Amino acid sequence: MRAAQAVDPDRLQTRLRGLASFGAARPGDIHGGVARQALTPQELLARRWLATEFACRPGYSVGIDAAANVYIRRHGENANAAPVLTGSHVDTQPLGGWLDGAFGVAAGLEVFAALDAAGLRTHRPIETVMWTNEEGSRFAPGLMGSASYTDPARLAIFRDTADAQGVTFLQACNDAREDFSMAAREAGWRWFDAPLARPLHAYIEAHIEQGPILEARGLQVGCVTAIQGVRWYRVTVPGRSAHAGTTPDAARDDAQAKAIALAHALLEYGRAQDDAALRLTIGRWHCRPDSINTIADQVAFTIDARHPEAPVLDALEARLQAVLPAGAAIEVLQHKPTVAFDLGLVELARQACQSLALRHADMLSGAFHDAMPLAGFCPTAMLFAPSIGGVSHHPDEHTGIDDLTACARALAWCLAALAQDGNAGAADAARAGSPAFDHPDLSTPTR
Amino acid sequence: MRAAQAVDPDRLQTRLRGLASFGAARPGDIHGGVARQALTPQELLARRWLATEFACRPGYSVGIDAAANVYIRRHGENANAAPVLTGSHVDTQPLGGWLDGAFGVAAGLEVFAALDAAGLRTHRPIETVMWTNEEGSRFAPGLMGSASYTDPARLAIFRDTADAQGVTFLQACNDAREDFSMAAREAGWRWFDAPLARPLHAYIEAHIEQGPILEARGLQVGCVTAIQGVRWYRVTVPGRSAHAGTTPDAARDDAQAKAIALAHALLEYGRAQDDAALRLTIGRWHCRPDSINTIADQVAFTIDARHPEAPVLDALEARLQAVLPAGAAIEVLQHKPTVAFDLGLVELARQACQSLALRHADMLSGAFHDAMPLAGFCPTAMLFAPSIGGVSHHPDEHTGIDDLTACARALAWCLAALAQDGNAGAADAARAGSPAFDHPDLSTPTR
Repeated sequence: MRAAQAVDPDRLQTRLRGLASFGAARPGDIHGGVARQALTPQELLARRWLATEFACRPGYSVGIDAAANVYIRRHGENANAAPVLTGSHVDTQPLGGWLDGAFGVAAGLEVFAALDAAGLRTHRPIETVMWTNEEGSRFAPGLMGSASYTDPARLAIFRDTADAQGVTFLQACNDAREDFSMAAREAGWRWFDAPLARPLHAYIEAHIEQGPILEARGLQVGCVTAIQGVRWYRVTVPGRSAHAGTTPDAARDDAQAKAIALAHALLEYGRAQDDAALRLTIGRWHCRPDSINTIADQVAFTIDARHPEAPVLDALEARLQAVLPAGAAIEVLQHKPTVAFDLGLVELARQACQSLALRHADMLSGAFHDAMPLAGFCPTAMLFAPSIGGVSHHPDEHTGIDDLTACARALAWCLAALAQDGNAGAADAARAGSPAFDHPDLSTPTR
Repeated sequence: MRAAQAVDPDRLQTRLRGLASFGAARPGDIHGGVARQALTPQELLARRWLATEFACRPGYSVGIDAAANVYIRRHGENANAAPVLTGSHVDTQPLGGWLDGAFGVAAGLEVFAALDAAGLRTHRPIETVMWTNEEGSRFAPGLMGSASYTDPARLAIFRDTADAQGVTFLQACNDAREDFSMAAREAGWRWFDAPLARPLHAYIEAHIEQGPILEARGLQVGCVTAIQGVRWYRVTVPGRSAHAGTTPDAARDDAQAKAIALAHALLEYGRAQDDAALRLTIGRWHCRPDSINTIADQVAFTIDARHPEAPVLDALEARLQAVLPAGAAIEVLQHKPTVAFDLGLVELARQACQSLALRHADMLSGAFHDAMPLAGFCPTAMLFAPSIGGVSHHPDEHTGIDDLTACARALAWCLAALAQDGNAGAADAARAGSPAFDHPDLSTPTR
């Protein structure tokens, strides 16, 4: 409670605005959009700027791992206890908003500042992480940093992925690690080279909702129970190209007309389910030869289908198969099941909101987050702050400072409670069996 | 009848295959496709090659006008009589077939060869024209040569139109005229500089159908009564971009879903009319931002609607307006009424087929042709040869030589009849009042 009360809106806002200046499309204007893709010079500068505040402060150290994930560690009384992790990412879409990812990192650091201001020490260490390449817009797919952390074998898969300029993910990570260690040496940071897959006591991530639900219901905090499953399909409908003026209906095989009928049947089916949790989007549509007076010989469109329950998506897929015209093909581009968060951690989030008298509700996450790979690795949950108009991945992305503060307070409440948990859990046991990664003289913070 | 009987399949085929070699994508293979856009070096060579055969032959001369339309003139007994015109175009789509346009020009020249072989002289001159830029793929729109001929004011509108390399239509026409006059001087051609809008006794154009109707009905020749009207629309449907995963149905304004419903309603309406003459094509479809997991904020698609009767298209347009979602806009890109051909000339075409015992029927043209602007200028009609599978604007475009010969015979029959018509018509009267354009020593062919 003391930690939550010590969360300071001005300090949080100052840190968020400072972070938004790295990659700002219009300097000084948080609503001009932010261009700060993963491991670009702008993103590395932003990471350094955030780390600098804590890297020389007594009781703190900073680390980096092989996937260039950066950790800012607030030491605990027990150096051997598995840490509680929070954070998010500071990379953005090519032109994104100022809060997506940034809020979760800034909120974690604000909790550190609040704990320091309240003079609180915790049993366990707490770390705020900046995961690498969450967005997936420079290197595809996204979530590379958090996926590599929880499953180091993934890094071997990602390492040769190149950006549009031919720079590989491995090269960019190594450059970032070199940049970071040079900065650390020059400025005398307390730093450590962090292994992947270090055991964690828990992970809890604050993030903006990126949807309209909290705002529409007048809520301050969403306690996220799961990340909704998603299936991506590409449907390809063949036809036969012919002259629009000379070809009677009976002689036509019009790919566009068939694709429109198919898409219409699918959207009608979706509407008929009358299920508010079902999300059905046809985002891409390409026709060939794309000429006004030529009948299309091919149409390809994509389907993004989401629902927390697999049988609902199975039924949708069966319907799609049933109405598919002859010769058409369905390609599965992605098939991710719903990821449920830890029941105990979600209950802790609810308790935080109750004891802080915050208007809150359980909700699903419709978007992916770094918490998705973490959920399979340690007890995990998320806290959402409302997004005005549900807008995200856009310069207009915004949340009022009161709502951001409320979410950061709930996060502080949860982190303080988790870090005071002295019971040795599975992570502590795992940790006891692995080599210490803390530099010995950092295990007890100096003052 | 003698002219028609003298039409020779081998000679026709040889000329067509020779013509196909200019711009052939696979030399020696007429089914590799032909790349011979308007006024390109390949098209100018093709024009020269066709002109060379007749330019020094007694009784012939060749001309070019300001729009670079080329005329091969077979002189008549009466140099003052308005000529009968046939022909088509030798430009192609970026990769077109070997017969579109080429057949009409080759058929006209084959009639000349047949008349010569039969030792026939005609009262009126007959000319075979190669119209400039019919396809409209190098300079948009198409029909520039024939439209400039029938309405010279149009040339002033077209002159500054540039191709993808920035070359204007005027520059390309002037270069072609210079190329042509140089060739004429070097080879000693009998040639003339032809004015636009010279009075014509009649225009009759042979062309491949570019549709499947004649083949499906087992016919040899189509007597074209009209070119079907066409309306082109661009429909723009607005929406609001949002995340596919985080935005519930109630909060969505999905441009793609609205556009699919609209297009479906329109196509369903079209099918419900059960009118074989109605042609409805949605050829282009562009969505924005065209991302799998983002709700579209704009969709634009095109409609190509054709029917011989304007009220049918009016009703379709009214239906489109009625189902248009709020905020959506309809832009009329083209609105061309049906162009009816001359009743007398169509009857002459029927008589030709009857007397030559060719399987024929009246039909509409679904595509545009140079005969469209000509129809407002002088008595005009067209003869169609079947297209195998209805395929055109594609390397697979093909018609058997028997069908091509049948159509060329009907053309010969019509041209011979028209050129023997000694009655002074309106065109002769108009011609009598305008300055002669023939060089005096060409008015009576030398042998």
